[in-house]
This record gives sequence, structure tokens and C-alpha cells, in this order.
Amino acid sequence: MNQLKVNNPSVQSLIDYALFWADSTLIIGQRNSEWCGHGPVLEQDIAITNITLDLIGQARNFYQLAASIYNANGHEQITEDSLAYHRDERAYSNLLITELPKGDWAQTILRQYFFSVFQQLCFEKLSTHQHADLSAIAVKSLKETRYHVKWSAEWVIRLGDGTDESHNRMLQAMDSLWMYTGEMFTNERNDLTDHKALQESWTKQVNAVLEEATLPLPSPCFMQTGGRKGIHTEHLGYILSEMQYLQKNYPGATW
Amino acid sequence: MNQLKVNNPSVQSLIDYALFWADSTLIIGQRNSEWCGHGPVLEQDIAITNITLDLIGQARNFYQLAASIYNANGHEQITEDSLAYHRDERAYSNLLITELPKGDWAQTILRQYFFSVFQQLCFEKLSTHQHADLSAIAVKSLKETRYHVKWSAEWVIRLGDGTDESHNRMLQAMDSLWMYTGEMFTNERNDLTDHKALQESWTKQVNAVLEEATLPLPSPCFMQTGGRKGIHTEHLGYILSEMQYLQKNYPGATW
Repeated sequence: MNQLKVNNPSVQSLIDYALFWADSTLIIGQRNSEWCGHGPVLEQDIAITNITLDLIGQARNFYQLAASIYNANGHEQITEDSLAYHRDERAYSNLLITELPKGDWAQTILRQYFFSVFQQLCFEKLSTHQHADLSAIAVKSLKETRYHVKWSAEWVIRLGDGTDESHNRMLQAMDSLWMYTGEMFTNERNDLTDHKALQESWTKQVNAVLEEATLPLPSPCFMQTGGRKGIHTEHLGYILSEMQYLQKNYPGATW
Repeated sequence: MNQLKVNNPSVQSLIDYALFWADSTLIIGQRNSEWCGHGPVLEQDIAITNITLDLIGQARNFYQLAASIYNANGHEQITEDSLAYHRDERAYSNLLITELPKGDWAQTILRQYFFSVFQQLCFEKLSTHQHADLSAIAVKSLKETRYHVKWSAEWVIRLGDGTDESHNRMLQAMDSLWMYTGEMFTNERNDLTDHKALQESWTKQVNAVLEEATLPLPSPCFMQTGGRKGIHTEHLGYILSEMQYLQKNYPGATW
């Protein structure tokens, strides 16, 4: 299904924004879940899977919020699962950075760090939003996200300031990921908080960690965007077809 | 590497028994982890992944126990990760039922239920074992396992006493799994508790749930064994090669 619209534009904003977060956290959670059972060591396998569960839990909260708003506006059939499992690629508004392959451990860690810092800054703003359900989700997510930032920052430093191999892999990860960071600071019409305004804090915080990790600060480059408008890399289609396989082939299957 | 032996037989028993539980919980955890991101609905995806994390956590505790006993007996190089990632198929002593493919949701649920009930009964015995570290792990695991039994029993009933399709799938799952249940009640020389003595309680508890699920009680049949002696189905090799790929190709990689 494509994105259902409601008549009231401010209600639509709330739905769109909840879906932006739901999609972004679900998709990065899906990517991280590919490590489940394949982490470099048992302890880190468990750590990244715990983070994955937090992210999928956040996705569920945002999908439930969007579904409840749809339900209250004449679309009773919408559920958290229909939003996650029945929407097309073009309806998904996740950030492109979340759909990139998990890559090696360096890429997974660096992507998580970039995204978690963005989440933290954004959820801090949202935690005082006037919409009570939205701010409640932000408050709850913030607690988890602070831990994700801490955990991933420690890894960025450990890998960057580690062996030659780990340092080189971090340089490669930086090369692959950096051009996808800019999309976090683009504003869409329906955003409930100003993402662009977060860029300065994000850059400051990230640069401090990169310096400690002995990694060069990236120079400005052309930034990839499109995810938020439903224009995705070729990777999202594969994720969705795998993720939605069961529901598409056995519609409504909850057995 | 193959299984390292120590000179003291009672120490060897403890190691072997810890590894039996470590391997069995790790492998069923690996199998369940294949659902991560692919559960029938988001809520159940999270539930099975949480159970997976518990099981891998239990595996870590048992591997750490085995490693610490090795360390104290002249094998300082052994770690939880070397036990998980560097042992060959023939050294793995997990129950065959844990290595079978995850199959459909019915098979995953029924396997989890059978195994969790066995775990619960066994951990109840082990929780009063004189070896303090072993009994501590059993006590901790028991709390988690009781929840796994409850969760999976509810699903067995829901699917068995559900739609025609879910009922039929449970019948198929029963057909595939039943012949692997007998191995849980075989005793190996080094066992620290009497598994055979648990069979009556297990059967009674399982039969009550199968009846509530409107599933026929299985008749006696030839039981597959071998896993505990390192004789595995073809499935284990694939699990291990995927799981051990990173460590085998980048020995000691902890970056």
C-alpha cells in the first residue's frame, strides 16, 4: 500500500513524522539484526542485538502512534504491523544511511554512532513537544539512545585508535558513510522539529569523538538525500522484500 | 580445535557438562536468531529475539565456567570465545533438536517449548548442585527459562487450537521434531544430573499442554541421538561455518 493521507494537515504532519522515525529505527534495526549470531565475539553480538531490540521497540512505538492517529481519523484498519509490513518502498521515509548494508563491524559501529547522536539531539527536542504521546516516546527512547551513543562512541575510539587494520577499516567506513550524514539535517515540510538546527551540535560532538579516535575530520562533500521522500537506494527493496515476505504471502497471518 | 582433555576426571565432567549446556543453548539461540527481523509480527519478532538473547547469555555463562575451569587446570589460552568459535563440529555436544532448521513459526515454537521444559526441569535440579558456580548459573537461567516455557506453551496452545492451517502446521512440526525429543533423556557418563529421571515429569507437563492445544499425543517412535557424542545432522556444519566464519578468517579478531 502507499501512504494513506488524512484531511487535516496538522494530523498528517504528526503521522508523517512518526513514520519517519518508525521507518528509520526499524530499518537500521533490521540491518543491525543481521549481526545477530554473527558478532565478532559473543559479548558484542549480545550488545548489538540489545541495541537492535531497543531500535525495533522504538519503531513499534512510533508505528503504534501513527496507527492510533489513523484509527482516530477514519482509518480503523491501520495497525502497527500493516504500517511496517504492507507499505511500499516509495512510502518508506527512512534516512538513506539506515538502509545501507551492515558492512563490516567498523561500518556498523560508525553508522550507529552517527545515527544515535542525531537521535539523541532530536529526541531531546521532542521530549518537550506538546503532543503528549510523542514526547513520551521521545523521553523513553532518549534513555536508550544515550546508552547507544556511549557504546558506539567507545567503539569508534577503540577501532579508530586501535590497530592499523581497524584504523584503516574506520577510514573506509567514513568514506562510505559520510555522504549520507547530511540527510539527517534536511527539513521536510511536515517535520515537528527543526533538524537543520541540530547540525552544529551534532558536528561538534562527532568531531570530538573522531579526534579522540585519531580519525581525520571529513571535508564537506556532496550529500545524498532522497530517503525521506521515498527515493531509496537499491538496498531498501531487498530489505523490505525479505522482511515483508511472510506477511505478503500470508496476508494477515498472525498465527 | 577438538575437545581438550584435562587429567582429573571429575574436573573433566564439569567441563563436559558445562559445554553440553553452552553448546545446546548457543545453537538453539543461533537458530532462533534467524527470526530476528523476520518474525510474523513486530511484537513476536521482539519476543523471540529476547528469548534468543537469554539463551546466548546462558551459553556465555556456561562457556565462561568451562573456560575458567580449563584456565585453572593449565590451559590458560582457553576463553569463552575460543570455545564457541574455534571448536569443530565433532567437539560440539549440543542436542540434535537444537540444530534443526528454524522451519516455520510452528516448528520454532514447538522446539522452543520442548527444549525449555527440559531446561526448566534440569536447571531445577542443578540449582541445588554443590558446585557453586554451576548452581548460580542454573538459578539465574531458571528465572528466564520459566518465562520461555510460559511464552512458548501459550503459543503451542494458540497455534494448535487455532485455525485449520495453524493446527496442521503444528501437526507437521510435531512430526518433524518428536523423534529428536528422546535425546534429552539420555545420560552421558559425565552428566552432573540424571536426565533420564526427568522424562516422566517432562512428558506429563508436555502432554497437558498438547491436550489443551487439541494436538494428539505422539506415540513412541525411534529416537534420534548422537549430538551429545559429537555426531550431528548435516545442519550443524552450516551453522558453525556461518557462525565461525569471522573468527576462522581473522583469528582472534576482536576489533
